[in-house]
Amino acid sequence: MRIALLGAGRIGQIHAANIHHHPGSQLHAVVDVNAAAAKSLAERYGAKGSTDVDAVLADPAVEGVFICTSTDTHVELILKASQRKLPIFCEKPIDLDLAKVDTCLSEVSRSGVPLVLGFNRRFDPHFRSLRDAVRRGEAGDIEIVKITSRDPAPPPPAYVRVSGGIFRDMMIHDLDMARFLLAEEPVEIFATGSCLVDPGIGEAGDIDTAMVILKTRRGALCHIDNSRRAVYGYDQRIEVFGSKGMLQAANPPPTTVTRYTRDAVLTDKPYNFFLDRYPEAYRAELDHFLEVAAGRAEPLVTGHDGRAALVLADAALQSLKLGKPVPIPQ
Amino acid sequence: MRIALLGAGRIGQIHAANIHHHPGSQLHAVVDVNAAAAKSLAERYGAKGSTDVDAVLADPAVEGVFICTSTDTHVELILKASQRKLPIFCEKPIDLDLAKVDTCLSEVSRSGVPLVLGFNRRFDPHFRSLRDAVRRGEAGDIEIVKITSRDPAPPPPAYVRVSGGIFRDMMIHDLDMARFLLAEEPVEIFATGSCLVDPGIGEAGDIDTAMVILKTRRGALCHIDNSRRAVYGYDQRIEVFGSKGMLQAANPPPTTVTRYTRDAVLTDKPYNFFLDRYPEAYRAELDHFLEVAAGRAEPLVTGHDGRAALVLADAALQSLKLGKPVPIPQ
Amino acid sequence: MRIALLGAGRIGQIHAANIHHHPGSQLHAVVDVNAAAAKSLAERYGAKGSTDVDAVLADPAVEGVFICTSTDTHVELILKASQRKLPIFCEKPIDLDLAKVDTCLSEVSRSGVPLVLGFNRRFDPHFRSLRDAVRRGEAGDIEIVKITSRDPAPPPPAYVRVSGGIFRDMMIHDLDMARFLLAEEPVEIFATGSCLVDPGIGEAGDIDTAMVILKTRRGALCHIDNSRRAVYGYDQRIEVFGSKGMLQAANPPPTTVTRYTRDAVLTDKPYNFFLDRYPEAYRAELDHFLEVAAGRAEPLVTGHDGRAALVLADAALQSLKLGKPVPIPQ
Amino acid sequence: MRIALLGAGRIGQIHAANIHHHPGSQLHAVVDVNAAAAKSLAERYGAKGSTDVDAVLADPAVEGVFICTSTDTHVELILKASQRKLPIFCEKPIDLDLAKVDTCLSEVSRSGVPLVLGFNRRFDPHFRSLRDAVRRGEAGDIEIVKITSRDPAPPPPAYVRVSGGIFRDMMIHDLDMARFLLAEEPVEIFATGSCLVDPGIGEAGDIDTAMVILKTRRGALCHIDNSRRAVYGYDQRIEVFGSKGMLQAANPPPTTVTRYTRDAVLTDKPYNFFLDRYPEAYRAELDHFLEVAAGRAEPLVTGHDGRAALVLADAALQSLKLGKPVPIPQ
Repeated sequence: MRIALLGAGRIGQIHAANIHHHPGSQLHAVVDVNAAAAKSLAERYGAKGSTDVDAVLADPAVEGVFICTSTDTHVELILKASQRKLPIFCEKPIDLDLAKVDTCLSEVSRSGVPLVLGFNRRFDPHFRSLRDAVRRGEAGDIEIVKITSRDPAPPPPAYVRVSGGIFRDMMIHDLDMARFLLAEEPVEIFATGSCLVDPGIGEAGDIDTAMVILKTRRGALCHIDNSRRAVYGYDQRIEVFGSKGMLQAANPPPTTVTRYTRDAVLTDKPYNFFLDRYPEAYRAELDHFLEVAAGRAEPLVTGHDGRAALVLADAALQSLKLGKPVPIPQ
Repeated sequence: MRIALLGAGRIGQIHAANIHHHPGSQLHAVVDVNAAAAKSLAERYGAKGSTDVDAVLADPAVEGVFICTSTDTHVELILKASQRKLPIFCEKPIDLDLAKVDTCLSEVSRSGVPLVLGFNRRFDPHFRSLRDAVRRGEAGDIEIVKITSRDPAPPPPAYVRVSGGIFRDMMIHDLDMARFLLAEEPVEIFATGSCLVDPGIGEAGDIDTAMVILKTRRGALCHIDNSRRAVYGYDQRIEVFGSKGMLQAANPPPTTVTRYTRDAVLTDKPYNFFLDRYPEAYRAELDHFLEVAAGRAEPLVTGHDGRAALVLADAALQSLKLGKPVPIPQ
Repeated sequence: MRIALLGAGRIGQIHAANIHHHPGSQLHAVVDVNAAAAKSLAERYGAKGSTDVDAVLADPAVEGVFICTSTDTHVELILKASQRKLPIFCEKPIDLDLAKVDTCLSEVSRSGVPLVLGFNRRFDPHFRSLRDAVRRGEAGDIEIVKITSRDPAPPPPAYVRVSGGIFRDMMIHDLDMARFLLAEEPVEIFATGSCLVDPGIGEAGDIDTAMVILKTRRGALCHIDNSRRAVYGYDQRIEVFGSKGMLQAANPPPTTVTRYTRDAVLTDKPYNFFLDRYPEAYRAELDHFLEVAAGRAEPLVTGHDGRAALVLADAALQSLKLGKPVPIPQ
Repeated sequence: MRIALLGAGRIGQIHAANIHHHPGSQLHAVVDVNAAAAKSLAERYGAKGSTDVDAVLADPAVEGVFICTSTDTHVELILKASQRKLPIFCEKPIDLDLAKVDTCLSEVSRSGVPLVLGFNRRFDPHFRSLRDAVRRGEAGDIEIVKITSRDPAPPPPAYVRVSGGIFRDMMIHDLDMARFLLAEEPVEIFATGSCLVDPGIGEAGDIDTAMVILKTRRGALCHIDNSRRAVYGYDQRIEVFGSKGMLQAANPPPTTVTRYTRDAVLTDKPYNFFLDRYPEAYRAELDHFLEVAAGRAEPLVTGHDGRAALVLADAALQSLKLGKPVPIPQ
């Protein structure tokens, strides 16, 4: 499959390399508003660089699209690709505005093109293995889910200002993971938080330390904690507890080396951030997208999943503002 | 120090053995409403068995008191012992009624006798080591605390009915641990929960699965989760996260034996329940009590600590009923 | 059982405390050539201190003997105790001279008194659990055994000179453990080693770093490595590998606390030395001795076991000298 | 770099995929005596399949050679490639006959072409990290090295018969690792072993369970244990102990998922075999080969390393036959 990659930034570069190296795909074109960036990334893999997304999407050779641009362009690009009947992979989120998301998804639905959303953690082998075990019933009926997600360092306040806030920018991954793990939809959410890491984040109107509790109709409880700054690295853990036991997925250490010294026993700290933590997940996303585009699989992350995570993030923000739990619109 | 032990039940038996074996203490008398139980436990260690608490407390040989009776007798026994000017160790809680606790503590304070409360986990070497590290600043400024506490099997609904409910009966230990770890008092609490383990507990008006979030004035967040039934054993873990890193205390396994089989790698599950999980803590409580009674140490768990944990438990219950966070009376 | 403790040194003090605290035993007398040491230890537990071993053994109140004196006195004291028909616990080794051991054991056998030898590691709960699993067949037919044993710091060369050498002084524990684990007797041993830690040990005619391979008739292989200096603490590990899998027993850490820092993830180093590593083993030795003395159990470590470990240690030394494997006399 | 791959078997397929996907290399041709195998593998990556090694090596487009054929053809192919002045990557061993190895290496040396040998474990990130730490002196002066290497299942006796035996076929990797870790050459080796896994291996004149002790001039000791059958998977561990502490590299588990059940705590068993255990190592080998071919790095595994490991394997076999340690020819 010849793929057009839209967006030559950090995450676009990951996908470009994977598309090039995958036996089932080929990087056909790279589009970016920055011509030099598009050209440089394209040339690395023998593809065409361009700043003209319409021209590239009109190219009959293009068979699929990866959307890795900034969030505010996602809806427009999804719509263009769906008009061209091209299978779409889009980085999360679809948009920060729920109404725009709804309009976009109904267009996609009408067009019939498959859309896979980039919630990368669903594709991580550790979390995937845990979720498969949950689905096989190894934990029994789910009673408690706990998700920890902490970034190594806070983003600059300027980014925070346009990010949509911690719930829509960061915790949205964990809210999606909660839905991925729980066998049913949450019906209520309580969110709280503080600005403890960087006062500039507070001045930008956001928090940097957050906790959320979700409750499902059946009464299962899910807790999420986020911090924008874990000095020991990228901290991503999951725990699922139920009537038959508990399943945990821990941070995989870069190496298994243990050092016994005069003072302590030392092992590796976790990976630094998502690019080195989730390389297999990005490769698995591509594998999956190619299967979906070929009609051999249903999307593991649908547009509806993207919408549902955004609904939870919005509800979390509302709960934070009101200082009490709010119901989740079903 | 010659000690009178009041209450010959499960926890009384632990203290009796420790008092007998400790070089600095001697079991002088055992009192229980069940004469046979008092006699049997007393004889095991060469002490006197009795059903008459007043007679025993009037015995001039008695130099200290351990109160291990049912909760509803604690206040009366504390008052008797404080009138006799005897140093007191009392199992938690002082009482489920805050007004009675206040009256009791002001009497104790007037009498000047030292009172040590039996929040055993403060004395556990693993948690103690973690807390010492927190106090040394190894985690930096505390931002997130997470406490997991799950019992192996639910109590009978009949017990639940008189227990004061999950917050005052079970989570009170975790609420005390939260105060022990945080460098400041919580100002707000949100509690939620479900009855997922045993419908009989729901019929008794209680829940068996609970989550709580505490917030301090500075904005630090503390999460506690409780379940009445963890099939893999007694699950007691702590995590403290801050500006300089993270500290965790895990479940100590009974042995370090690992089995590599055709199917998986197996290690021991956690200890079954508190009696086998916390033997060192009970010994350390006695060590500490003897130091306090000798005037060489201040109580690590005061009557005020007992009161403060009860205030939190009561606030949790109120939050659960109201369905929203409530402020903690300071 | 009223026990006479012979030897008030480091290990004698451990046994004295355990004997005092055990509900089934009482410390009746402490004998040491150093009168002050005997007195001081005896007074701590309300026992009699003495320098006269014959007088103490003649005391009709004495019902059992713990021999914790220096190795060169063991045989004489065992014989005295066996003439008095007293059940005997004796620290390892019986003697460094095999002929003396044989004479001694045949006297003990004639007298019919039970003799339990102090190979403490057989009583450690971790190793005991591993060995029980091995006996239940969890590893299948044993093919490979690996035993690691490293002390935290070398003894002074003066001690080394009279110690009998690393095989008889230190590795003898591991040789006994090898026999404890293997289902059959070794038939061949190869030993090698170096002086890498302290040249003074080399000058004293010994090595401080050693490796041994034992082979059983069936062909199972057992490897032991020893070092006199592990800067990270007392390192005692076992691995048993067989047709059905592998069992390992690791160093139990003092606490389960884990620290995540900017640089690494840190856990506790192992215990410092045998006194803090094996407290449960010493208590279990006493439990076992009391059961044996009461006729309710057969010795878990017999005089024959002590002899067999010495035979292996002697063979190791011979192999080291000859520079090649030697057969084990059966 | 356009690469000709000789040998389309299991390991050749690994290298073919890596060469194809690497940005700095291209799979130009695949040669195999089995025409269908050559064609099938070549076509997967747009390369030419052939049975004619001379024709392929004569192709001026070829810039480098990967030799992945059966051992008995290695020398001939190395010589052909070196005559063509092509940089060579060759799977271990060069040959089982030391004289042929010497002739071959002196030809390679004369030709000046770089030769990298495929001791894959040197390139594994876990072992590489451990060795880097050793080289930085984190363990201090090396005193004890322990290498465990166990295959999941024994090869058929027919393979064993032509394999050169366990030391040259299997332990040769560990002997190379020993040299990689030790800062000096071994001067003596003792080998022992048994046939415990499959009597057919014994009938083929080999053993399936082996232990070796190496000693360096300075007196450092290195132990290796091998088994042809570990039911729990591919077991590859290293321990380096020295004057400043200990470093260990463990088996990396496929996932970090832990399961807490009614009976035990379960984690993943190790990877099944080398293909899934060492994918990063094979990629790193290729990276390294391209650097060496470009003159930007010296080979991490030279022909001399291949020879030295074979010398150790031969000496191990001699020791096994003689039943005593033998000196290593220097």
